[in-house]
Formats: sequence, structure tokens, C-alpha cells
Amino acid sequence: MAPLPQIDLRSDTVTTPDDDMKKAMFDAPLGDDVLDHDPTMAKLEETVADVLGFEAALWVPSGSMGNVIALMLHLRRGDQFLAPDFAHVLGSELGTAAWLALGMPRALPHDGGPGRPSVDTVRREGAAGGPYFALRTTLLCLENTHNFAGGAVTGPADWANLVAAAKENELLVHLDGARLWNAAVALEVPPSELTRGADTVTVCMSKGLGAPVGSVLASDATRIEEARRIRKMLGGGVRQGGMLAAAGLVALQSMDRLADDHANARVLADGLRERGWTVTDPDTNIVLADSPDPSATVTELAAKGIGAVSVAGKVRFVTHRDVGRADVETVLHQLA
Amino acid sequence: MAPLPQIDLRSDTVTTPDDDMKKAMFDAPLGDDVLDHDPTMAKLEETVADVLGFEAALWVPSGSMGNVIALMLHLRRGDQFLAPDFAHVLGSELGTAAWLALGMPRALPHDGGPGRPSVDTVRREGAAGGPYFALRTTLLCLENTHNFAGGAVTGPADWANLVAAAKENELLVHLDGARLWNAAVALEVPPSELTRGADTVTVCMSKGLGAPVGSVLASDATRIEEARRIRKMLGGGVRQGGMLAAAGLVALQSMDRLADDHANARVLADGLRERGWTVTDPDTNIVLADSPDPSATVTELAAKGIGAVSVAGKVRFVTHRDVGRADVETVLHQLA
Amino acid sequence: MAPLPQIDLRSDTVTTPDDDMKKAMFDAPLGDDVLDHDPTMAKLEETVADVLGFEAALWVPSGSMGNVIALMLHLRRGDQFLAPDFAHVLGSELGTAAWLALGMPRALPHDGGPGRPSVDTVRREGAAGGPYFALRTTLLCLENTHNFAGGAVTGPADWANLVAAAKENELLVHLDGARLWNAAVALEVPPSELTRGADTVTVCMSKGLGAPVGSVLASDATRIEEARRIRKMLGGGVRQGGMLAAAGLVALQSMDRLADDHANARVLADGLRERGWTVTDPDTNIVLADSPDPSATVTELAAKGIGAVSVAGKVRFVTHRDVGRADVETVLHQLA
Amino acid sequence: MAPLPQIDLRSDTVTTPDDDMKKAMFDAPLGDDVLDHDPTMAKLEETVADVLGFEAALWVPSGSMGNVIALMLHLRRGDQFLAPDFAHVLGSELGTAAWLALGMPRALPHDGGPGRPSVDTVRREGAAGGPYFALRTTLLCLENTHNFAGGAVTGPADWANLVAAAKENELLVHLDGARLWNAAVALEVPPSELTRGADTVTVCMSKGLGAPVGSVLASDATRIEEARRIRKMLGGGVRQGGMLAAAGLVALQSMDRLADDHANARVLADGLRERGWTVTDPDTNIVLADSPDPSATVTELAAKGIGAVSVAGKVRFVTHRDVGRADVETVLHQLA
Repeated sequence: MAPLPQIDLRSDTVTTPDDDMKKAMFDAPLGDDVLDHDPTMAKLEETVADVLGFEAALWVPSGSMGNVIALMLHLRRGDQFLAPDFAHVLGSELGTAAWLALGMPRALPHDGGPGRPSVDTVRREGAAGGPYFALRTTLLCLENTHNFAGGAVTGPADWANLVAAAKENELLVHLDGARLWNAAVALEVPPSELTRGADTVTVCMSKGLGAPVGSVLASDATRIEEARRIRKMLGGGVRQGGMLAAAGLVALQSMDRLADDHANARVLADGLRERGWTVTDPDTNIVLADSPDPSATVTELAAKGIGAVSVAGKVRFVTHRDVGRADVETVLHQLA
Repeated sequence: MAPLPQIDLRSDTVTTPDDDMKKAMFDAPLGDDVLDHDPTMAKLEETVADVLGFEAALWVPSGSMGNVIALMLHLRRGDQFLAPDFAHVLGSELGTAAWLALGMPRALPHDGGPGRPSVDTVRREGAAGGPYFALRTTLLCLENTHNFAGGAVTGPADWANLVAAAKENELLVHLDGARLWNAAVALEVPPSELTRGADTVTVCMSKGLGAPVGSVLASDATRIEEARRIRKMLGGGVRQGGMLAAAGLVALQSMDRLADDHANARVLADGLRERGWTVTDPDTNIVLADSPDPSATVTELAAKGIGAVSVAGKVRFVTHRDVGRADVETVLHQLA
Repeated sequence: MAPLPQIDLRSDTVTTPDDDMKKAMFDAPLGDDVLDHDPTMAKLEETVADVLGFEAALWVPSGSMGNVIALMLHLRRGDQFLAPDFAHVLGSELGTAAWLALGMPRALPHDGGPGRPSVDTVRREGAAGGPYFALRTTLLCLENTHNFAGGAVTGPADWANLVAAAKENELLVHLDGARLWNAAVALEVPPSELTRGADTVTVCMSKGLGAPVGSVLASDATRIEEARRIRKMLGGGVRQGGMLAAAGLVALQSMDRLADDHANARVLADGLRERGWTVTDPDTNIVLADSPDPSATVTELAAKGIGAVSVAGKVRFVTHRDVGRADVETVLHQLA
Repeated sequence: MAPLPQIDLRSDTVTTPDDDMKKAMFDAPLGDDVLDHDPTMAKLEETVADVLGFEAALWVPSGSMGNVIALMLHLRRGDQFLAPDFAHVLGSELGTAAWLALGMPRALPHDGGPGRPSVDTVRREGAAGGPYFALRTTLLCLENTHNFAGGAVTGPADWANLVAAAKENELLVHLDGARLWNAAVALEVPPSELTRGADTVTVCMSKGLGAPVGSVLASDATRIEEARRIRKMLGGGVRQGGMLAAAGLVALQSMDRLADDHANARVLADGLRERGWTVTDPDTNIVLADSPDPSATVTELAAKGIGAVSVAGKVRFVTHRDVGRADVETVLHQLA
């Protein structure tokens, strides 16, 4: 195992729980969440459902499981789903949308803005019809913020228009909100304004918020009941998961500090640009930098103790709670 | 059931067997092709393998089954495959590449010519690597002629370059040759020049060649043995299939007459253009015409006794053995 | 390929079409059964639906495809289905009930008679309930005649009782009637008395009836519409399938001659018993014989020009239209 | 949500972590176990691999996920696997062995002792061969202790004989060791004597051992590498899972106290028998009691504050670390 980078900007998943969070985990009332409903789990699920404006919610061990459960709820053999190109469900979940959720994906261009299709594209590609032997397009997946578009946010108006276009063709809508909290903080709107009209939403307790393990899937009560059954199928039903839920409850209260990560990302982007890099203008906590050979650049950065990754033909830096302004300045100093 | 169009240009699949073909079916020696190997089946499979330059071949009831068996041979969970946008395996086989063959598809642009990606695109998208939790790209599917690109042909040099690019990254190659016979006739090359280096190829006995039922999958002997097993799984093992194989053997001998279909397609395209339509320049037997509302145009044509279909945002006309030059002229006359 | 046995009792699938059947195939009106509905196909499907007492039917290339389509119509992930032990769907269809139709099978004892469970067993095993994380039993599959129980028939009263027991727990019922015609002839009842209450039924046009290729799935109109879509998915949609349907129409009219096969089976069983073999008492056209080493016995028989197979720990002989009384006597003579 | 039973004998999954375990979780060094390998995870996995006598191991969120990953490693479409009737993988994992791992199950009788098949049965059912269109039996699953056989143990000699019988037919062997620790303590042998020759083993950190979440899958290094990839597919890759692993490390050290649970189970069984119940003689921590209506009995017990469940037609009581001798006596007193 290679040594960890001193300043780890590979992902906001690397954050570790602080003592307050651990204390909450220690003190949480627990139960068997498979046989019954662990009380702390129940509290987290109700809280997240409320925050997102949904009837019910379900904790899952990972965002990947949350997304695939949503797709399993929505898709049948012979269905096609739409998603913006480079969406996590297309390229970063090991094909589960296809082989596990049985859906044929169709990647849409980002012609509506960074990370999202245009309303016209959704209308055209979601058009119903075709004979019995044709695919049926039944689902639109969106991602906010869109990771591989550089943490790009979709605002409430664009979101509402895209959902409306989907509904014209009776498409279901799933939102992969792995970094929805970042979008809400950046836009200074409640998260529920960015989920309205969706049939399912996943959010992450781990990334910027810092809980050790877990995501949450929100929907209506009927779907969440079925989702609980699917979670058990996939091996995601856990026993005394309340300890993890307790961390999630603490994490939710620290959402506002994501603004610091966003500020740090802007400092990083500006600094890199000054040093001659071509970088995205970060909406949130992700900076994408051009490189003729991203893998080589990542290796060079690692040699300097700086963690980054290569994604979608770019070098990606992600700021998070375990990286302060001083760390960002150290990085820039190293690259001077 | 609506009455059939008087002049049916919806597809070359509508052709019916003539008396010579029926006589061959009548006289063919038969066996039980599940328990043993029906002798006429065996003869067809050997013949097609030879023509395509492969070790072995397997009859299947449809090209869709041939393609999905090929993908099932090649793909494992977590694998991604590449195919030119609008390929039959992407949009026209009810998602079996995903839910049955377990592959995550990635559509490539037609930047190497009509119906095919460029060598650079194959190189870039097929690049190996990524961590353990990333998709592995393992297969390139090509289609010659490419149906929804207007029956566009890929010639031997372009084919060879694309196969070479795939092999650089150790990708397997599958060729959907539903209309490979048309490509070979149009290019005046033996079919085997258009299959060299592929791991699997499917060809159709039914479309332009006129057999009533059946396609053939060609590959090496080991894969064909496994393909026979998969065919049985899918319910495609038939008993006295030799009758259908006999038709296929006759069909193969009539390949040259596809040149007439190609000539008729050019007459149709020229005539339509003269009448103000915007149409593709046909390489083979397919003409695509622009329309602001393809479904409406198809309905108008049907009212005039002309069969056409709406595909990929265009109106498609296909010439075949049951449509003569006079029929094409009648069509043009109707549209005058 | 080994030489075929002179007297082939391996299966009734080895029968080949006679000249009357071929003539009907030659003369049948044809169409494209994927784009439209081939007229001869339509006629066969209506005829079989009528004979079986159902609203609609669908031709399929094989009984295996018919069965798996039925199971795909009925089952969802997390469902369990019941079937008598050694049913074709359990052990003889390459696991498609599991990996393709997504069902968890549960084999029932033959405690209600040869080839069928008792009413009590169906009641107990089909009982509803259990928590959200438990399998849901949703389907009972029966098989009449039951192949590996020696072609055993289930009569109308037993059938009705089993269906009623299934319905008490809201189970769906599928009947694998690969040799239903034999059961009806042996019982001297119309086939529809043996299908009443089933949700889906498959019957075979090929085995004793002698059509070269094809089975038929019957159900209500809604399910058959969906079945047509699933058939296309699996690659079972064929173009000018009317030729095969024409053979099926002729085959249906020859059903009564199955009585000869049953008489021959009884002669064979009696003769084998006289020669010291322990054999089943045949209800229909299948004789199972005990053997300490069935595979070895099959090999010995083959050396004498007699075709048999080893199934479920026994040696199986099947009589059919291409084996006359004289052939049976030759077999017995050889074994004297 | 119904109130929890005062004395909860429904399952040993209801145990909650004590303060020592929580302290270990609090203090554990953490990392991102998806991007890297969390150091505490790595330590747990190495420790369990050692204890079980394997090269490598992988933490999973649940035993269900461990079992299905093992089956996904071993099975291909068209494969059949064998398991003792009522095994967890057959009836208690929502059919994942079938629809997710693609295997056709075959339930074996418990003719070799409680919870296990005989050597002869494994030999007969695992026999290789059959034509290309036959299922291939490739895997034997065993379960020790066997839950629904009343926590029955399989000792080292029986285990070795069953593994040897499987290997005669080149079957792979998977051991579901959800309660393997109980078997080892009851038999007073090291766990590795009960795993020798298996290709994969799952064990549970949660049940009797009391960790809040998690199981471990052990195998050779190559399979565990592939298992890590499959775990990610299923959504079981977690980030700072080291906190859960830390609990597992503590849990492992408390294995010996399972002897108390076994003693308590015997006291419970004896007491129930004195009170006129018909119960199993417990090998470990599970007591099965006969009842004409298990669900009704469970409801009556619940009304008295006693938690039990209905499984496989019996009433099941499970002793564990959160139930003391006094609790057992209270239960017996209640039932006097």
C-alpha cells in the first residue's frame, strides 16, 4: 500500500469523523435494523426525508447502492434511461445500471449547461412511442452537483424545467445528489428546492459532511418500503446501524461549513490558473485541470505529497473538511 | 391488423421465399439439431463459416439472438463495450446487451465516417486501466452496413484500422453483419475481407437474401461450442431446423442480385431528391430522408400504399428482392 | 457425429415432417411476423388458443422459450416458485428459471401421484406471509405429462384440485404442456379440461405431433402482448415463420394418432418386463427402465441400433410417429 | 413499531456493542477503504483470514452479501449448485443465489445428519456429465452451524468427508459460517478445522460476537481481489469502515463466551421439555420447538414479553450475550 498523500485532494470521501461525531455514535440508542427499525436509523431517515421534502427515506451503506436501488425500483427489462454523459450511474458504478437494474442507458450531451442536458434534448430523447419491439424510455437521471463536470450546480429554475420536460413524456426522475448539499450551500437554497418533482433522490452522509459510512435514498413511502426489501437483497441491511446513523445526524448539522470548501476550491483554481494551468471555474468543491496526460500529472503530484485523481480526461482536486486554507496554499506553493 | 402496403419499403425483412427455395427446403435431409446436428444445418454452418473466413458457425433464429449470444460470450459484469451511436445492439434490441449480456454500453460518435467511429476514438475510449472499482472496456462492436447511418459501408482498409486500434487495447471485436452481404456486394470484395480480425460476426439469411427465418453467428470452434449451449438457454435450439438451413443455402447463392437493390435505392434517392426531398446518398439498399415529422410522413406514405418506417429521426426506405425497378418508379410517380 | 440409431427411441422430438405437412408449408400465405403478424402464424395462434381454452397464444421456436417467457411474465426478484421435483423447468432448461426469469425454485415431492405434488403440499409451501425480507411464493408450475415421471398424466380432477390449492394462496399457475396432447389423448378429454384455471400454458407442435420446429404459449391477451415483446428480446421473433406455423396446423389435426404411440409404449413395457426389466407402467408414450448404470445401458443399446437416453437415473424410451409396432418388436427381439 | 420484547430470543443479531467495543471503535485508525485500504479494516481482514486458515479476507456489511459474492465468484449461467434443504442461501436471502449469482439451486436432504447431506448424496448429485444442454453442477454450499436445523454442528470428520466427496466431482465448496464460531466453541476445535478445503467461507462479526455491523468473506488472494470488485458493484464498499472493523477485532477476542450461550440454550431446552414442549437438543445456541401453529405461538410469547420467531414450521429461540441465565429462568417461569 502506497503512503497516503500529505494533502489529500483525491476526494471528499477521505474525511474522518471528529470527536463530536464519535461521541454521538457512542451514545446513540441502538436496535436491530433488519428485524425492527433501529431508533437512531429511524430518526436519521425521517430527518433526511424532511430536509429533502419527501415522505420517507432509507439509509444505505453507499451512494452506489442508493442509486442502483432507485434504478431497480424504476426500470424493467426493455426500458431505456437517460443520463447526462459522464454521470456516475453511467461510468462509475461498474455497470450496475445495466446488469443489475436491467436498464439500457442513453448518455445525453451537456447542452443545457455544465453537467446537464437541455430541455429540448430531454423532450426529444424521452419521446414516447415506437412499436412493441422498441425500447421504452422511462427514466431521466440527473446529477447535482455533477462530479465529472467539475462539481457544476444546477439551479432551481433549470431543475424545474428539466423535471417538467421529463414529465411531459411521463418519465420518472431520479436525482443522484451525492453532493446535493454542496449545490444547496452554493446556491443558498434549501435542498428541497433542488429535489422537487423527483421520484427518488440519493444523498451522501460521508463526503463533505464527514460521516464515516452511509448514504440515504428518499422517495414516497411505498417505494421506500420496496427499497428496504431490495436493500436486504443486495446485502445492505445492517443490524446496529444506528451508530452510523448517529454520525449522519451530526453531519447534517454541519452542512454550512461546505462554504469553506467552496472558498478553498476557488483559491486553488485561481492559484492554479496563475501558475499557468487551465482549470474549471469551481461552483463548489471540485476543480478540474487540463493535462495532456492526466495519469502522469497525478503521479507527479503524488511525489510532492499532493493527492489528486484522473477522471474523464482531466486532473481532479476536491476540497473538504480535512483540508484547510493553509493546505491549499501549501499545494500552490509546491506547484510554483 | 392494417392492410400491408402495396409497395413495401419498410424493410428487406419482408421478402418471402420463392419456389426454388421452398423446393430446397422440401428436399433437405433432416435430423434433430438439439440431440444431434441436423445435416443440412451442419452444411449451412460450415458454408457460412467458410465464406466469412471463420472456423465454425451456428445458426440462430434471428440476428438479435446472434448478437446477444456474441455479447454473452464476450462480456462479464463490470465490463463496458463500445459501439457506434445508433448501432442495432444499442437501441434496437430491447436492451439485451445490458440486462442479458450484462454489459454497460458506451456509444461512440460517427467521427470516422458514416456509421463508424474514428481510430482515435477507439484508441481513447478503449484505453485500459483505472482502479479496481472502474469499468473495464473489453469489447468493440461495429456494424456493416450501418443501418441507421443509411446502410453506410465500411471498407476493408477502415475496417482493418479499427480492428487494429481495438487490439492495441486488447479489446474483443464483434461485427453485426446483418447486411454484410450488401457491403461486400457494394464494395465488390469477398465478405471475409470485411470480417478479418473479428472475434465474432453475425450475418442474416433473411433480409436481402430472402430466406424465411434465420441468421448465423461465426467465430472460432471453442466459442461456437459455448454459443450452442447459450442458444439452447435462450430457447433458440430447434429440432428439424434443416428446412430453414436449406433456405439459407439457396439464399447464399443469390447474393449477387443485391446489386439490383442497390441500383434501385440510387434511383429512389435521385428521384426523391429531384422531388425536393433531402436524402442520403445510398451506399447500398437503404435511403434515409429528412422530415420535420417522420411519423407523420410515414403515415402519409402509407395512405398512398407505400411502406416506410421512421428511424433515428428520419424516414427510411429499404429496397429488396420483392421490389422491382417498376415499383420504385411507381413510388416516385406517387410522390410527384 | 455418431451414426443415428436405426430405431430411435431417444425422444419424440426426432420425428420429421411428412409430405402432407411439407405441402402445407409450401402453400402457406406468408408475412413478416415481426413487423406485422404473419397470417398463417395468426391462424395457428388462434387455433391453439381455442383448443386450449385461452384468449390468445404466441408461437415460439421452442418449448424452453415458451416456459421461460411464462416465468418472466410471472416472476419478480425475490419471488419463489414451486414445481414438482425433476420438472423440465427445474433441471432441463439450463437454469433459465433462475438466472433469466429471476425466480428462486422450490422442488416439491411427487406426493400427490406420479409427477405431481399433493394438494396439502401446495397449500403448505404456497402459504403467504413472512416478513419483508422473506421470499414471496407466487407461482406453481405443473407438468402434464410429467416427462421424468415416465410420461405420467394428471387427470382433470387432480388438476382442478391443485389449481384450487394454488389459488387459495393467490399463486399464479403455469402448465408446461410439452406433451399435453398425449395426456388429453390418453385421458380421452379435450385438452382444455387439463388447462382450466392456468395463467399460462405451453404446448409443443414438434414432439409427437411432428412439426419440424415450434411450440405455443397460451394465456390472456394482455400477457400474450407482453410475451410477444419478451420473445423479441430473447431473439425468438422470426420473419416468415408462417411456414413453420403451417406445419403446426397440420400437426394439430393428427393428434389422435398419439394413441398408437401409447399402445406401442405399452407393448414395449410389457415386452421389457417379460425379459426381466423393471419398467414403469406407461400412461402415454414414455417408458422408464431401471438400470444400475443407465449410461452404460444406453451405450449397449446404441450398439444394437436402439436409441434411448439416460434421465433421472433411469433409461428412457419414447415412442413416436416414426416408430411402428414392427420397430418395437424388433427392439424386443434384439433384447431377447 | 411494536415494543421490543423484554427478553429477546428472536436472534443473536439483536446484541448491541458494549463500552469496550465502542472505545475500540472510537480509537481505531481510519482511512478510505474504497480508495485505499483502511488500516483497521486491513487488520481485521488479515486476522480473520488467519483464524480461518485462508490467504485473504474481505469485510462485507452483511452475511447475505458475503454469501452472494461467494456465489457470484463461483457460478456461471447454466451452473447448478447443491445445498442442504433450508440452507440460508436457498430460502433466506431473497433468491439472490438465483437472480443475482445466476445459479440454479438443488436442495439436498439432511441424510448425513442434522443440517447436512450424506457423502453418497453429494457424490450422486454432484456427478459430472450430461450433454451440452444439461446443467453443470459446480458448487456445494454447506452451512455450519445449520440455522434451520436447530444450530446443528458438523464436526471435522464429517466436514472433511463432504469436502472430499465434492472434490471427486470437481465441485467448488462454499461454507456459510454465519455461526461457525458457535460450532468451533461447541466442538472445542479451532475454526480452521471446520473450513479446510473450502474455496470460500463467510463468517459473521455481529451475531453471537456482538459487533454492530459486518461479516467477513475468506478465500485465496485472487478471489478476494475479485470479491472486492464485486463488493463495490453491490454497493458494499464503505469509506471509514475501520470503525466497524475495530468492533470486529474486539468481538473475535470474546469468542469463548459463546459457551455460556450454549449452556443457556440447554437450560432453556430442558426447561421447555419439562413443561411439555417438544424441542430439539441444542448443539449450540438455538432451540427449535414444535408447535401446531408457530405464528400463533410466537404471538402468545410476545404477549408475555418473550421474543421468538417462526422458522421452517417451528418456533425458534436463540440465546446470546444480552440474555443471561436469569433471563432464561424468567422465560421458563413465564411458561410454567
